[in-house]
Amino acid sequence: MKSIIKKLDGGICAPKGIKASGMYCGIKESSNPDPGAEHKNDICLFTSDIPANTAAVYTTNKVKGAPLLVTKANLEKSGGKASAVIVNSKNANTCNADGVEKAEKMCALVAKELSLPEEQVLVASTGVIGLVLPIEPVERAVPVLAKSLDYTKNEEAATAIMTTDTVKKEYAVEFEIGGKKCRIGGMAKGSGMIHPNMATTLNFITTDCNISGALLQKALGDIVKITYNCLSIDGDTSTNDMVLLMANGLAGNAEITEENDDYLEFKEALYEVMGTLTKMLAKDGEGASKLLVCTCWGASDVDKAITVAKSVVCSTLFKAAMFGEDANWGRVLCAIGYAPAEFDINKVAVEIASEFGTVKVCENGAGVDFSEEKAAEILSSDEISINIYLNEGERCATAWGCDLTYDYVKINGDYRT
Amino acid sequence: MKSIIKKLDGGICAPKGIKASGMYCGIKESSNPDPGAEHKNDICLFTSDIPANTAAVYTTNKVKGAPLLVTKANLEKSGGKASAVIVNSKNANTCNADGVEKAEKMCALVAKELSLPEEQVLVASTGVIGLVLPIEPVERAVPVLAKSLDYTKNEEAATAIMTTDTVKKEYAVEFEIGGKKCRIGGMAKGSGMIHPNMATTLNFITTDCNISGALLQKALGDIVKITYNCLSIDGDTSTNDMVLLMANGLAGNAEITEENDDYLEFKEALYEVMGTLTKMLAKDGEGASKLLVCTCWGASDVDKAITVAKSVVCSTLFKAAMFGEDANWGRVLCAIGYAPAEFDINKVAVEIASEFGTVKVCENGAGVDFSEEKAAEILSSDEISINIYLNEGERCATAWGCDLTYDYVKINGDYRT
Repeated sequence: MKSIIKKLDGGICAPKGIKASGMYCGIKESSNPDPGAEHKNDICLFTSDIPANTAAVYTTNKVKGAPLLVTKANLEKSGGKASAVIVNSKNANTCNADGVEKAEKMCALVAKELSLPEEQVLVASTGVIGLVLPIEPVERAVPVLAKSLDYTKNEEAATAIMTTDTVKKEYAVEFEIGGKKCRIGGMAKGSGMIHPNMATTLNFITTDCNISGALLQKALGDIVKITYNCLSIDGDTSTNDMVLLMANGLAGNAEITEENDDYLEFKEALYEVMGTLTKMLAKDGEGASKLLVCTCWGASDVDKAITVAKSVVCSTLFKAAMFGEDANWGRVLCAIGYAPAEFDINKVAVEIASEFGTVKVCENGAGVDFSEEKAAEILSSDEISINIYLNEGERCATAWGCDLTYDYVKINGDYRT
Repeated sequence: MKSIIKKLDGGICAPKGIKASGMYCGIKESSNPDPGAEHKNDICLFTSDIPANTAAVYTTNKVKGAPLLVTKANLEKSGGKASAVIVNSKNANTCNADGVEKAEKMCALVAKELSLPEEQVLVASTGVIGLVLPIEPVERAVPVLAKSLDYTKNEEAATAIMTTDTVKKEYAVEFEIGGKKCRIGGMAKGSGMIHPNMATTLNFITTDCNISGALLQKALGDIVKITYNCLSIDGDTSTNDMVLLMANGLAGNAEITEENDDYLEFKEALYEVMGTLTKMLAKDGEGASKLLVCTCWGASDVDKAITVAKSVVCSTLFKAAMFGEDANWGRVLCAIGYAPAEFDINKVAVEIASEFGTVKVCENGAGVDFSEEKAAEILSSDEISINIYLNEGERCATAWGCDLTYDYVKINGDYRT
């Protein structure tokens, strides 16, 4: 019998045995700190009470942030086990000559404070690329973070990883495996330089489900492909993209070691968490006023459906038209046309939809009459669906994105200052 | 001895035997024309006094405008000879059920008026995709255009092909082959939906040089690769991209039939015209305030250099940073890092330059100290050069683009209205 997936509060702390903490330590203002001022958290720590099987996916960008290199090396040394993760925002610690040294130092500080083997501590950073990371604020923060670790402080962590994000992103679910309640929780950061490619933005997922390291990695890879990798805010694949998935087994279910029904249940719950976080990331894209959800139906295979759907949500012109609430479907067809995939453009149909209704704007690769008034009403929603029908097969896929706005230009015209 | 290439006035009419005309016929306002109002030209015609060998390159978009299909078919029927080209703006005549019929009608109207075989008339259209083209304004215009054809009316034609362009784009040169003066002239339109891929935006090049059809096509393909195909305004490959190159041989040089020195002279002059038009297109990109010229040096091959340089000028984040005059070189390195090409990122150096000076911002894949004040001064220019050094070989290539501005969003938020 299929388990019911239930939404939970608690983010990454929803699973058993996961503690978190977060604080402001002044990474950006380190040379001129102002402890009296109110600041957003910029550093966080989270831990598993026992070493957790940990799967990871990293950016495909050739420029890889130093934290990624250190996290990867540590997971190799520990045989895929992790107990703690430290994450800072405001500085990516990437393209710095001393980046690896500083990232290792962050792990060492946590390891010492929590009496853990260094290789069981992972590290991630997000923020400006190519700025030397000041280590002093981290040195001051780690003992405080360690002392305040708690099973309820998921929000302190989720706010600490935010950069230009306007809202924190966390989600958690509960489901059953073999009569045992399991939980998966996650947090993610956006909201620019997002075009994950076999990788993702910073995303941290925890679970108390008992599952082998090998299957954990397989499940993560499969779900990344149809969630984070189908997301684009601005077409820029970041240097620091990383998703970590930690499974500590504290739910007490029999270990999942093969691709049986339990594995499928786990994957479905994982999709629920990662899919929801993906949608949250798209909706909070830099400067975004509208979430764009593009689904390609009737493709002969999933990869093709992904390619076509992504091509549309990545089109700068289409994104600008959505901001202007202009049903310029020619731009949709243009973006479908340059997607690197084989199909018959003369069979393609396109619908635009929202909670206010649906209009068909194109059939057999050519325009059809539609009411511009109805289209304008549909496009006034803050969540627009674009349905593309290839009419050649049975597979489908969804890609998520957002509109291109004045605020995107404003935010990115002076991000460093 | 190498011929000297001299800049000429006259655009497409600079070569011998090329007449042009242009006018306003009300393609957009056809249902409600206002002949009294002042309007930009929206239709033009140009002819060669004798049938010209004609080479063409078309968009790789699967959605192909009806005018492209008709032009391609006519050139096949005529054995690569053309005598006249008719072009309209304000309507792309693409994704319409009756598109081919209308494009053929445009050729037939011109053929009848000028007593030409229909297959020697070519057609191009640019404007909104998916809007039925009204043929009546064209019917009214063709006799007028035919009557007013003249060897000096290049500007009337160059303004007629403009859409969101803020300036007309034309350029011409004179050079010598075997003691005979030859000329090449061209006109182009921008300025959005520009990311040519084995093709280009609407570009029309004329020459009186005597050269075989086969070599004309080869020269065009080679030069498109390093000019128009290295240009990106917004990453969107249009459905109507086309470049036509007509050579009528009226300069009287001995026909170029092999890849000898004369052929190389011709190619160099062609590069001069197409390269200059490319730069004009980039500079007048929709909403652009700055021209971005990115050159990748020290690559092991030209294709790699093109890939890396294009990746940078296409990066939305980098384009926004240039608008903000922010020396955020991390975004340059990030875009280099996700370029689909193999090289050692740890050898990469980056410089930012303009008429106000040069600063090195990155060496060996990591940041170096530089004066932010100097960088700010350099970036205040309206033409920014980004020099990337791969330090692995001897080849180089340049890509052209523009910054991402509020005006780009404004222009494209309501393009149709």
